[in-house]
Amino acid sequence: MTMLDTTTEVLSTRYQKSVADYWNKEQDPVNLRLGEVSGTFHHHYGIGDVDWSVLEGPEGTREERTIREMHRLEGAQADFLLDQLGDLGPADRILDAGSGRGGTSFLANLRFGCQVDGISISEKQVGFANEQVRQRGVADKVAFHFRNMLDNGFPDATFRSIWNNESTMYVDLHKLFAEHARVLTPGGRYVTITGCYNDVHGRQPSRAVSQIDAHYICDIHPRSEYFAAMAANNLLPISVVDLTAATIPYWELRAQSSVATGIEEAFLTAYKEGSFQYLMIAADKV
Amino acid sequence: MTMLDTTTEVLSTRYQKSVADYWNKEQDPVNLRLGEVSGTFHHHYGIGDVDWSVLEGPEGTREERTIREMHRLEGAQADFLLDQLGDLGPADRILDAGSGRGGTSFLANLRFGCQVDGISISEKQVGFANEQVRQRGVADKVAFHFRNMLDNGFPDATFRSIWNNESTMYVDLHKLFAEHARVLTPGGRYVTITGCYNDVHGRQPSRAVSQIDAHYICDIHPRSEYFAAMAANNLLPISVVDLTAATIPYWELRAQSSVATGIEEAFLTAYKEGSFQYLMIAADKV
Amino acid sequence: MTMLDTTTEVLSTRYQKSVADYWNKEQDPVNLRLGEVSGTFHHHYGIGDVDWSVLEGPEGTREERTIREMHRLEGAQADFLLDQLGDLGPADRILDAGSGRGGTSFLANLRFGCQVDGISISEKQVGFANEQVRQRGVADKVAFHFRNMLDNGFPDATFRSIWNNESTMYVDLHKLFAEHARVLTPGGRYVTITGCYNDVHGRQPSRAVSQIDAHYICDIHPRSEYFAAMAANNLLPISVVDLTAATIPYWELRAQSSVATGIEEAFLTAYKEGSFQYLMIAADKV
Amino acid sequence: MTMLDTTTEVLSTRYQKSVADYWNKEQDPVNLRLGEVSGTFHHHYGIGDVDWSVLEGPEGTREERTIREMHRLEGAQADFLLDQLGDLGPADRILDAGSGRGGTSFLANLRFGCQVDGISISEKQVGFANEQVRQRGVADKVAFHFRNMLDNGFPDATFRSIWNNESTMYVDLHKLFAEHARVLTPGGRYVTITGCYNDVHGRQPSRAVSQIDAHYICDIHPRSEYFAAMAANNLLPISVVDLTAATIPYWELRAQSSVATGIEEAFLTAYKEGSFQYLMIAADKV
Amino acid sequence: MTMLDTTTEVLSTRYQKSVADYWNKEQDPVNLRLGEVSGTFHHHYGIGDVDWSVLEGPEGTREERTIREMHRLEGAQADFLLDQLGDLGPADRILDAGSGRGGTSFLANLRFGCQVDGISISEKQVGFANEQVRQRGVADKVAFHFRNMLDNGFPDATFRSIWNNESTMYVDLHKLFAEHARVLTPGGRYVTITGCYNDVHGRQPSRAVSQIDAHYICDIHPRSEYFAAMAANNLLPISVVDLTAATIPYWELRAQSSVATGIEEAFLTAYKEGSFQYLMIAADKV
Amino acid sequence: MTMLDTTTEVLSTRYQKSVADYWNKEQDPVNLRLGEVSGTFHHHYGIGDVDWSVLEGPEGTREERTIREMHRLEGAQADFLLDQLGDLGPADRILDAGSGRGGTSFLANLRFGCQVDGISISEKQVGFANEQVRQRGVADKVAFHFRNMLDNGFPDATFRSIWNNESTMYVDLHKLFAEHARVLTPGGRYVTITGCYNDVHGRQPSRAVSQIDAHYICDIHPRSEYFAAMAANNLLPISVVDLTAATIPYWELRAQSSVATGIEEAFLTAYKEGSFQYLMIAADKV
Repeated sequence: MTMLDTTTEVLSTRYQKSVADYWNKEQDPVNLRLGEVSGTFHHHYGIGDVDWSVLEGPEGTREERTIREMHRLEGAQADFLLDQLGDLGPADRILDAGSGRGGTSFLANLRFGCQVDGISISEKQVGFANEQVRQRGVADKVAFHFRNMLDNGFPDATFRSIWNNESTMYVDLHKLFAEHARVLTPGGRYVTITGCYNDVHGRQPSRAVSQIDAHYICDIHPRSEYFAAMAANNLLPISVVDLTAATIPYWELRAQSSVATGIEEAFLTAYKEGSFQYLMIAADKV
Repeated sequence: MTMLDTTTEVLSTRYQKSVADYWNKEQDPVNLRLGEVSGTFHHHYGIGDVDWSVLEGPEGTREERTIREMHRLEGAQADFLLDQLGDLGPADRILDAGSGRGGTSFLANLRFGCQVDGISISEKQVGFANEQVRQRGVADKVAFHFRNMLDNGFPDATFRSIWNNESTMYVDLHKLFAEHARVLTPGGRYVTITGCYNDVHGRQPSRAVSQIDAHYICDIHPRSEYFAAMAANNLLPISVVDLTAATIPYWELRAQSSVATGIEEAFLTAYKEGSFQYLMIAADKV
Repeated sequence: MTMLDTTTEVLSTRYQKSVADYWNKEQDPVNLRLGEVSGTFHHHYGIGDVDWSVLEGPEGTREERTIREMHRLEGAQADFLLDQLGDLGPADRILDAGSGRGGTSFLANLRFGCQVDGISISEKQVGFANEQVRQRGVADKVAFHFRNMLDNGFPDATFRSIWNNESTMYVDLHKLFAEHARVLTPGGRYVTITGCYNDVHGRQPSRAVSQIDAHYICDIHPRSEYFAAMAANNLLPISVVDLTAATIPYWELRAQSSVATGIEEAFLTAYKEGSFQYLMIAADKV
Repeated sequence: MTMLDTTTEVLSTRYQKSVADYWNKEQDPVNLRLGEVSGTFHHHYGIGDVDWSVLEGPEGTREERTIREMHRLEGAQADFLLDQLGDLGPADRILDAGSGRGGTSFLANLRFGCQVDGISISEKQVGFANEQVRQRGVADKVAFHFRNMLDNGFPDATFRSIWNNESTMYVDLHKLFAEHARVLTPGGRYVTITGCYNDVHGRQPSRAVSQIDAHYICDIHPRSEYFAAMAANNLLPISVVDLTAATIPYWELRAQSSVATGIEEAFLTAYKEGSFQYLMIAADKV
Repeated sequence: MTMLDTTTEVLSTRYQKSVADYWNKEQDPVNLRLGEVSGTFHHHYGIGDVDWSVLEGPEGTREERTIREMHRLEGAQADFLLDQLGDLGPADRILDAGSGRGGTSFLANLRFGCQVDGISISEKQVGFANEQVRQRGVADKVAFHFRNMLDNGFPDATFRSIWNNESTMYVDLHKLFAEHARVLTPGGRYVTITGCYNDVHGRQPSRAVSQIDAHYICDIHPRSEYFAAMAANNLLPISVVDLTAATIPYWELRAQSSVATGIEEAFLTAYKEGSFQYLMIAADKV
Repeated sequence: MTMLDTTTEVLSTRYQKSVADYWNKEQDPVNLRLGEVSGTFHHHYGIGDVDWSVLEGPEGTREERTIREMHRLEGAQADFLLDQLGDLGPADRILDAGSGRGGTSFLANLRFGCQVDGISISEKQVGFANEQVRQRGVADKVAFHFRNMLDNGFPDATFRSIWNNESTMYVDLHKLFAEHARVLTPGGRYVTITGCYNDVHGRQPSRAVSQIDAHYICDIHPRSEYFAAMAANNLLPISVVDLTAATIPYWELRAQSSVATGIEEAFLTAYKEGSFQYLMIAADKV
């Protein structure tokens, strides 16, 4: 059973309320249509080479083929993330911070058999995901909570692994990693896949990055901030992979798809000019 | 005579090049038309109560009246900034960091009679301002330079006062204030008027603030960053004034004017929801 | 009803005991005589222009006129402080840290109707102020407590506003602001009016400043310390006003009055040589 | 031609002198015999799967086969390091910090055609490597210098890439990375392959790690120190790979070889108990 | 009666387990034989001039004389440590952190009559020491606990004095001093006698120091670390004495004794080359 | 020959000018009369047991005996300071920071034969001391300079030892130790004897300490500041001695002498109440 906190306690600033509002209202086909392919709903992007043949063949089913291909790529991203979580088994407990409609959480439970908690500041998403829990019959193992990842309410040293799949750009990283470090067991693993802006390109976000910020009401952090905030919170990197080249094909396909949201050009510009990077960081709790 | 540095040395990151590019191409009537009123060209916003009667009366000259009123308000802002510079006289030397087309620099020279240097990373703006120097016949007292404010090239302890009039959002504040502190005399005064986002509203910029960032390719800093970077660089606040309420009328008039650029709603939203503030900070070099 | 803690717990160092001892014994006419004018007893200085005509006219009532004028100026100071507290109403709760005989607390309750707590390490002052509570019949709204402002005993996020009216020079600012930040609500306002020594004059206090320190057994902090300690404790300045010029007339009048305590010359010397400043800082809890 | 600094200037502490002394005297077959296989002399370990068949077959040539296989593995390690250096061409200049007998430097020059400088605090190694320069006829492109990597004597922003191939355990990382950051061009790449002790196993080095320290008179740093020192010196990670599993086979083969030095068991114990890790970190100069 | 915690809770990393394992198995005559002289068992070294005549005279009792002399020197060291603890009486409570077989604890109880707690991560040592408590009949005043000094389990502000007699090299000093500061009363005294490596000799430990690390599975800290960690944890030095010259005679005698453990040469080399120092630091809790 | 800098460059703040002014005018018999005893003029206090018999015997020569005894005690203090300077010989060069009328400098030259530079911001004192140089015929070895110890003008790594004999309370310790560290050779020794206020008594100076501050226009630092500023500037303590008990007899004698300046009671009160301490700290440059 999930615990439902009150809105007042979960959302402490007006900024957080505006983000929650966005996601409560969000009905983007790019998330819903892709999720319907397999019944696993993601809120993140894809990686890997595109099978461009989906654009060829009968026009009537082109959209369906494209949607299916994009869903395959976002599945590949989630699989790559799960690869970094370390050795996990049914006895372990793990946390999906910013769990959206629950996709990665369900995949994690399937792979490791362990207990998964997901948290989100969108009550709508929490409700949607818990409905999926019911349908999938995994209520003994998977639960979603309406909670703020900066103050997650779990006891100290609860989780063997924690991840943020494209959900760190809404929060202060120092506060986030302090809270994650608190609830990780000693030696526990933290993994994030995230877009970050590239300090090498400039100390300030480029125009394209600010367009993405405005689109999602988020605040994309510089790459340096991730390492600084981890270091300050006893999260020690063990693996870092630059996924920028691997995610560009997904965006090129999406730009040509029926579910494009208009932000695709900003992503492609930002990635290609080098002002933005798609990064996986895995770290150990010391 | 001003010294002209080469583009390569002045612009060290791709971000800086994109900002310079923006300002080299910029021909916004909101800057040019207003400047033509008096021949003093500003690149900042206005403060003070609006004389709303300019919108009434004959339609044929309404635009002219509106432009004139907006120019009066941006002049009031520059005057307020100059009020904070401390006791200055002809023997002093002062710096306009991010000098645009030179407006505030010329007003400062007129008021104090002192030697003014202006710097900008837009060669176009530097050329325009130096042409104004020639026309005004103040080449012995005022000069504009194509230089980066993060590495201004002046000797240590050169200036009695330095200001940034809405030009800090393009740079890292720690680097900026370190450089300012280097060239200020002991006890010298630094003044900035700037838009900053309000940490109290949230640790992240709101959507409206990100829209402004994307419009100007800038990176609006949180209010806290100003005080943190000053403290780290021996700049000690002596006066702080929240000008948010004073600048809203300017934006309301501008939104209704012929020179609106489309960014007006973002400013008004941001100011009114409390996510953005228009601030004057004066500080002493210790 | 106020809660009375034991002396041992409230005063943790020998320094604190010596300060408490000073204020328990203090019977300075400059505080008592002025308080008797209106029944509101302050322990701070005044601001604003002096009506010098009080020194003229019949000698018999000159002292009375002078006392009355000084009381008017200290009232003006308290009013200015209250102006900075933000929008407050009857539902709010606020804290007067270092409340002395209670003057500013009563004025705040009168203006906003809100609940006011005052704290002091002088049991004598707490007793005096609570007797005033009884006489004024405001026991449902105002209470004074024998507590240490470094460990005030209130729950987290209790107060919408907190102020120190000339009481920060007895404590470590980092510890003080940490404790204030703890009990302020998010977005709450902190205000201090204080004398600080001016880092621009020198990194060390001048002789006159040390004389004031010795007189009051206090430790006047440098201006920089206020901003450093605020920054370290999530208190973000929104308004700073240098009141030095505004307080000098008060001291000039006081030096000629019957209630001069002998420390007046040190204040006037310090203010006029620039080694000491009278400052108002308002900040928001982030 | 290389510049030869005097011993006094290069070696500033007694610790450094003892390290230099060790390497000046070192004649370990594990370095010399393997180098003779191809004429490229390395001072680092190998990675990759072992062809265990080398231990089988005629006993007379077993040693030769083993040596050849170990040399293949250390070559693979050097190749992997070079893979991380970024896009380099003949116009670039790069630095091998702690260059030993020059192996990696020569491979880098072969692959990229760029100008390579190597530095070492062992005059013997510098002499050996420069003799190789002469024999290989690459004096126009490769040079070795008797210099301290903490004070390398090169002008600011000289190198496009710098690496330490197992040579960071002799120095303070903060000083090292400060010096590297100084001579890297903006956006330049730094790469290290190193053994570090694992903070997750314990905040202190294990016995096996201390045995390695005593053997080489080195000071193996914790993993956390690398990220802390990089962060403090504007070196921003872009790729991190844990090579521990990949280097264990090399050590297992070496333990059975004729060139074992006696330290093999300490390495194997440390790697297998998890107290020690073999790590590649690539970072960008911001 | 002492409280016995479970092994799992006391030993939180694998490093700690290996240290505990070492001391659980340890039966070094240098500790046991010397302890048997007087029934007071130490685990630290000695200071003061040696009476070299013990090596002369009848061979049959030479060993006994030598052992007795070494025991006298380790007693002198313990006495010197106790001299630094400040004014203590029967009403005070003090802590021996890393209490070994209990020697210094018993001497402290004898001298001051105060209540002494000793803690160790070796269950064997704790058992041995508590057996001594029983034999000495001091169970009302002295108790030993199986606890980790980084998380000692005592309430805040419990102890008037705390010491580490050669037991700081097993732990992170920042964590240790944070925990000590927590349980010290305000104004309480902390004393350590320790071997530290000398930053002046080099930023890295010498070979001899690493040999000592490997021997004891410890991590000898640099001298600078002690002062840094104290400063960070409100422990303020009041007395520092370099005991290096005073401990060398003990090691020279021990090297010639029957209870030498083989590590003597490393100590003598390290002390004499200046890479290692034997230091007493006394500090006050602020 | 000494180099004379201009007043403007040496004294950079108004505070420094007021301190220089004080010492330029100072003609305290407690310094001049005592100095005349042996021709060695000190500006510091004494340590050691007093021979109280000086107060007995013929009244006519009592004053002379008392002065002589006080001079003996200040000589003992200087001797104790010189004991801490390390092994020095004629080839070494050392610095007396805040050299007053030159007493300690001459004693150092006598003891070690090495080259001594003294610096002071009082031109009068520098002149007096250089006149002594002439009279003593040591111009080849001893020189005094009108310089600011925060910017001493000597090349890097010039001095083997530096000391401040009661002269650190006029300056910011962080700036002072940064400058000292700059001009010390690696491994060089720094020594200070100073009065500091005791953080254990309270975070703020007591009334008595502030009276001393006002008397000398100085700013007595807390004990903690010394260790913090040393740690921040690579000065590593090796010896710390609390001299408070040893200096009290000097003050008791002085209070009864003809050369008492009126500040004696403040010193005795401060030392005896524990709010003030007389400390020797010796540290090595790392």
